[in-house]
Amino acid sequence: MKVMVLGADGYLGWPLALRMVAHGHEVSAADNFYTRKAVEEVGSWSAIPIPSMEERVKLVKEVFGADLVFKEGDLRDYSFISKFLEEQKPDAIIDFAEQRSAPYSQIDIDHAVFTMENNVIGTMNLLYAMKEHVPSAHLLKMGTLGEYGTPNVDIAEGHFEVEYHGRKDRLPFPRQAGSWYHWSKVHDSNNISFAVKIWGLTATDVHQGPVYGTRTDDMRDELLRTRFDFDEVWGTVLNRYCVEAVAGLPLTPYGEGGQTRGFISLEDSITALALLLEKPPEQGTMRVVNQYAESKSVMELAQMVKEAGDRLGLDVQIRPVPDPRVEAQRHYYNVERHVLPALGFYPKHNVRDEIPAMLTDLMKYRDRLVEKREAILLAGSKAGVEWRKTSSLLPRKAAARGFTQRSTT
Amino acid sequence: MKVMVLGADGYLGWPLALRMVAHGHEVSAADNFYTRKAVEEVGSWSAIPIPSMEERVKLVKEVFGADLVFKEGDLRDYSFISKFLEEQKPDAIIDFAEQRSAPYSQIDIDHAVFTMENNVIGTMNLLYAMKEHVPSAHLLKMGTLGEYGTPNVDIAEGHFEVEYHGRKDRLPFPRQAGSWYHWSKVHDSNNISFAVKIWGLTATDVHQGPVYGTRTDDMRDELLRTRFDFDEVWGTVLNRYCVEAVAGLPLTPYGEGGQTRGFISLEDSITALALLLEKPPEQGTMRVVNQYAESKSVMELAQMVKEAGDRLGLDVQIRPVPDPRVEAQRHYYNVERHVLPALGFYPKHNVRDEIPAMLTDLMKYRDRLVEKREAILLAGSKAGVEWRKTSSLLPRKAAARGFTQRSTT
Repeated sequence: MKVMVLGADGYLGWPLALRMVAHGHEVSAADNFYTRKAVEEVGSWSAIPIPSMEERVKLVKEVFGADLVFKEGDLRDYSFISKFLEEQKPDAIIDFAEQRSAPYSQIDIDHAVFTMENNVIGTMNLLYAMKEHVPSAHLLKMGTLGEYGTPNVDIAEGHFEVEYHGRKDRLPFPRQAGSWYHWSKVHDSNNISFAVKIWGLTATDVHQGPVYGTRTDDMRDELLRTRFDFDEVWGTVLNRYCVEAVAGLPLTPYGEGGQTRGFISLEDSITALALLLEKPPEQGTMRVVNQYAESKSVMELAQMVKEAGDRLGLDVQIRPVPDPRVEAQRHYYNVERHVLPALGFYPKHNVRDEIPAMLTDLMKYRDRLVEKREAILLAGSKAGVEWRKTSSLLPRKAAARGFTQRSTT
Repeated sequence: MKVMVLGADGYLGWPLALRMVAHGHEVSAADNFYTRKAVEEVGSWSAIPIPSMEERVKLVKEVFGADLVFKEGDLRDYSFISKFLEEQKPDAIIDFAEQRSAPYSQIDIDHAVFTMENNVIGTMNLLYAMKEHVPSAHLLKMGTLGEYGTPNVDIAEGHFEVEYHGRKDRLPFPRQAGSWYHWSKVHDSNNISFAVKIWGLTATDVHQGPVYGTRTDDMRDELLRTRFDFDEVWGTVLNRYCVEAVAGLPLTPYGEGGQTRGFISLEDSITALALLLEKPPEQGTMRVVNQYAESKSVMELAQMVKEAGDRLGLDVQIRPVPDPRVEAQRHYYNVERHVLPALGFYPKHNVRDEIPAMLTDLMKYRDRLVEKREAILLAGSKAGVEWRKTSSLLPRKAAARGFTQRSTT
């Protein structure tokens, strides 16, 4: 199969490209290296050092004996994606080429507009380019469980049967996102569903929970590792807690810490995505997939990191801070999953067992974490005055209303 | 009250600006004159000639003795809208400044992207500028009933109570739009709801059905008239049927013509919008309003136009064409309306009575219609080969799949 990975330089993009190579597929890839620049913009870097794409391509050749075709480019440029699809004619395309941070999207008008433009217009260009050059290719789109918010009913897998005033229909499950980033993903999901309807494109929309982990089974060489972000803006919650534990900083759940999400390990995430690529939906249809392994509250995560850290001699503190977000601190959360189990996928990893491995991996890079202590600390102090004063990231007005977000997805 | 009308040069924007002036409010207004240019782009013009904005401002002074503050500008330019709000400090803002044509948004990638960018980014800029300069102002946003699509259940007014797997919640009513334009409006509705949630802005989201009519009661002078579009791209269905009847062309419902929408007259639409501006929702909340007067199928409209036209000696033919759209030709359609009746609004006009007045108004401008016969004719022949060959508007691929749209909203 010919697979194209868009956003191949990212936390998930790179491991999926490796997995596809390892499975013997012909892989092409693109990235605009935006994440590398944007993480630098907030004064941080990847906990685990990653080589340049040039070196990565060479390594793939050495380790797997495979040719990874890479092209630098931006999906906001229609001619780029159009030409690349025309050249490569992939059977499947996975799109990770999006601004993926909720807090980044909330910084100010420029970052909010950038998020909308990059994600929504990038996806529109991709859809039109697919219609033009590969109308029967399968698009696997990374969405997020965050699109659904936290309703007081079970979260259906894309659609649900409802009865209203005595009549019945199968309708899209309502979306209630919690950041401009999450909304941009909702807009994408909606636009893709429409392209499938009018043009007969084929798509899978994956609503994935927050991913944690430092490696996949394909990373046979240390240099094959993927990036690992830990700063306030780009790191996700469990990855950040592990870094805080290693760097000797307190873990800082918000308020009661009852905010519950569905988590999945990097290895399981990549396995599931590979399976979805290898088993596409029926031509001309849209398949919606909810993907996660376990529901955990952020306080449970903090406690598990503390326990594992303490066992490794790290002396981990938990110091809850007032919740700066507009969100329910305790809520019902049950996400339906039918598609992946029906394809035979069951997650093999769980948070409790993975945390020690993550901590051990990260302890090797403790110096890199401590060097960027400021970028981690943003979280610890962000509900206080100091952070608002010292960081240019949070607009004064938003700070006044106390709205910032830690990206849980 | 200080009211700002964004998109004040348009079919609805101009009459609403007049109504606000007539009610004694201080009115400021902006427009980028995009519609004038875009209608020219498709080889058409307004059936009823309209003066320049300069002349309009003078007329308002002469007729109403009021100063209408007008500024040319584009909502995609944050500094424009930010400065204008800072200067004017309006209590209420009504946003018509959007690309409003479904067929226009479907022409090709450039028009689709323009629609997303203009509407979504324009609204983002407006929301941030409101937060910055007038956080307690009331935003009245023009949405469309088309955001909901045609579900097999009653269409709720924004939210509905659902029971799912034994649990209950009040959720946003699912959106199932039918064009890039309609989806851009859904994205706007979603983004506005989020700005209300996190910043405490105040908004009314009006889901209005297609509007018909040639005048409002405020147009005491012929020169105060609003534009009236009739071409394939910019005209809405009933307005177009009236023009076809006057120009001696057959009316062309799609297929069985059972496509049903909720229609409202221009006069009633403006009365309702003025009422919503004068009776804002509670501060910090979002009010969703469904607004229309009567549900009619397009075949019923065609028959009513034929009857009225025949009585006026026009000899009107109805010639159904195959439906080029991806839509249900017959479907359930019941839209709930609670907010406007609770405010004491009941529509006074109905399609059957208004059609003769519209035909009579348009007959004065028959020459202008016949001169742009080509632009009208696009509709009649669009399901055939000729139109696809002669028009550059429809991309070859979309034509091959037979997808074009007549804007019903």
